[in-house]
Amino acid sequence: PDPKVRAAAAARQAELTKPAGSLGRLEEIAVFMAGWHGTPRPTADRIDVVVFAGNHGCAAQGVSAFPTEVTAQMVANFQHGGAAINALTHACGASLAVIPLDLDTPTADISRAPAMSEAECLDALNRGAAAVPEGCQLFVPGEMGIGNTTPAAALCAAALGGEAEAWVGRGTGVDDAILARKRALVEAALALHGTASTNAFETLRRLGGREIAAMAGAVLAARHRRIPVMLDGFIGCAAIAPLAAEAPAIVDHCLASHRSAENAHGRLLDALGLDPLLALDMRLGEGSGAAVAVQIVRSALAAHDRMATFAEAAVAGAT
Amino acid sequence: PDPKVRAAAAARQAELTKPAGSLGRLEEIAVFMAGWHGTPRPTADRIDVVVFAGNHGCAAQGVSAFPTEVTAQMVANFQHGGAAINALTHACGASLAVIPLDLDTPTADISRAPAMSEAECLDALNRGAAAVPEGCQLFVPGEMGIGNTTPAAALCAAALGGEAEAWVGRGTGVDDAILARKRALVEAALALHGTASTNAFETLRRLGGREIAAMAGAVLAARHRRIPVMLDGFIGCAAIAPLAAEAPAIVDHCLASHRSAENAHGRLLDALGLDPLLALDMRLGEGSGAAVAVQIVRSALAAHDRMATFAEAAVAGAT
Repeated sequence: PDPKVRAAAAARQAELTKPAGSLGRLEEIAVFMAGWHGTPRPTADRIDVVVFAGNHGCAAQGVSAFPTEVTAQMVANFQHGGAAINALTHACGASLAVIPLDLDTPTADISRAPAMSEAECLDALNRGAAAVPEGCQLFVPGEMGIGNTTPAAALCAAALGGEAEAWVGRGTGVDDAILARKRALVEAALALHGTASTNAFETLRRLGGREIAAMAGAVLAARHRRIPVMLDGFIGCAAIAPLAAEAPAIVDHCLASHRSAENAHGRLLDALGLDPLLALDMRLGEGSGAAVAVQIVRSALAAHDRMATFAEAAVAGAT
Repeated sequence: PDPKVRAAAAARQAELTKPAGSLGRLEEIAVFMAGWHGTPRPTADRIDVVVFAGNHGCAAQGVSAFPTEVTAQMVANFQHGGAAINALTHACGASLAVIPLDLDTPTADISRAPAMSEAECLDALNRGAAAVPEGCQLFVPGEMGIGNTTPAAALCAAALGGEAEAWVGRGTGVDDAILARKRALVEAALALHGTASTNAFETLRRLGGREIAAMAGAVLAARHRRIPVMLDGFIGCAAIAPLAAEAPAIVDHCLASHRSAENAHGRLLDALGLDPLLALDMRLGEGSGAAVAVQIVRSALAAHDRMATFAEAAVAGAT
C-alpha cells in the first residue's frame, strides 16, 4: 500500500465532522482501501465474488453430512440463482461468478496420496489467478466442495502446527462419529506428507484441493494487482495458511470478514493476525460471510468520501 | 410477534439449500422480522432513521469535548447532508429525518433540578412517537446532543443500579479531568433525584433529556405498531433502560446494532439482554452503528426470501 496515500486518507478522517476516531474500524478500513487503491478517496462500487468449486477424494471416506454429488448440484444452484451467495451478492450489489474445477475428477484422498499432481495444482492456482476480474475494487474468493473442511484442517496443521484435533471441526454439522473419522483422516494425511511438505506449494498440492488452490492463486493475483481481498471463512483462510507461514505479509491486502462457527476458524484468524469484522455464527462458506461484510466496507467508504469537514460544515471542533 | 408466522419462517429456513443453521444469526433475524411483520417472507425495503437532537443544561458544567453550540451546528450539517449519518444512510438506502427538539431551551441541569417538567417530557415522548413513519419496516432512532452521555449514564444508574463510575465513560473522547466532572455530576444527580425517581416516566423526566425521551417514545410507538427497531449505541439503549427495568420485554421488538466503544455500553446491553450484531469500536451516535447494522438485516431477509429450497433446486439434503 502507498504510505503517502494512507497518510492523506488518515488526515482527511481527522477533519471530518465527528469526534476523532469515533467511526472506529470504519476509519481503518477507509485508510486500508485508500492505501491499496492508491487514491485518498477510494470507492468499492465494483465488488466481485468468485465461487470456486472442487471435489475431494477424501470425501469418499464419509467426512461430510452431505453426499459428494452435492458439489455439482450446488454449482447448478449457483448458476440458477438459488443459493445463499446469490441472495447475499444481490443484497450487497456484488457481481458473482462460479468456476467449477474438474468436478468429475476429484483430488486424490490426502490420507493416501498427494491431492494433486504438480500440473494439477499449478492449473488450479492459475485458474484462480485468472478469475480476478479487470476493474475489480474488492475481491471475494468463495468456495464449494463437499468434504473440504478436512483438507483445510490438514493444511492448517501442516502450515501452522498443532494437533489435527485442534483444526478439525464439524463443518456442515457432522456428528461425533464423522468428526472422529475426519480427525483420523487428517492425522493419516499429516503422517503421510509431513516431511514432504517442505514449502507452501508442496503443502497446498499434497493437502489442499482444486478450489482451495484456486483461492490461493486469486489472493496472490489480487496482491500483485493491489486489489484488496475480503476473506470468507475457514476454507478461504486455510487456503492462504501455507503462504502465510512462509510470508506473513501475504495477508496485508486482506480483510477478515467474519469469525465463523467452525471450531478452528478463530485460531486460524489469530495465527494469520486478522481481526474479523463480524461474528454472526455463520458457517456456510460460498463467500457468504464476506458478502455480508463487504457492506461494512461500503459504509466505511461512504462516510470517508461523503462527509463534510469541520471547515466545510462550519462546525466547531473539540476544545 | 406472531408465533405461527415465526414457526412458518423457521420451517422455511430449514428447507433452504444450506446446512441447517449455517446462516447463524441471519436465520434468527429473518424469523424475528417475520414474527413482527406478521408475514413469513418479510422485507425491509423501507428503513427509516430519525435523528432527534436536544440540548442539556448539564453541558454548561463542561462534560463534553465539544461546545454546546455544536448540537445546532450538527443539525445544520445533517440538513445539508454532511454528517456521518447522511453518508451511512445513503450507503444502506435508508431514509433520514432530523428532529431538533427546542435546542434554544436546554433541559435543566440534572444535578440541580429535574431535566424536564412533566409537560416537557410528555411532549418529547409524543414527538418521538409521532416520528415513526407510516409504512416503516425497520426503525432506527438516532440522536445528537452535546453532553448527552452524562444524562444517559445517570439514567442507567437510576434504572439498573450500580455506581455512577460504572456507567460514566469518555463519550466523544474527554480527558480524565472532564471524566471526573461527569462522574461527580452523575453522583449529584442521583443523590438529588434518587428517591423521587419512582417509575420509568419520573426517571426519564428527571435524569433524561428531550432527544432521549423522544427515542423512548419512538421505541414505544414502534412496538405498538409492531415495527422492529434497530437500536444504536449507548444513548439509545439508555433511553429505554427505565422502561426495561419495569418491563424487560420492551426490548423484544429491538435488535442491538453494535457494542460501541463507550465504556458502559456492553454492560448496558447485557442488562437489557441484547446481543449486539457488530463490535466495530464505533462511538459516534447519530444512529451510525445502526445504519451499518441494518445491512445485515437486508442480507438476512434476502437469503430468507430469495434462496431455493432443496426440493426446488434438486439438491440432496444431509444424509
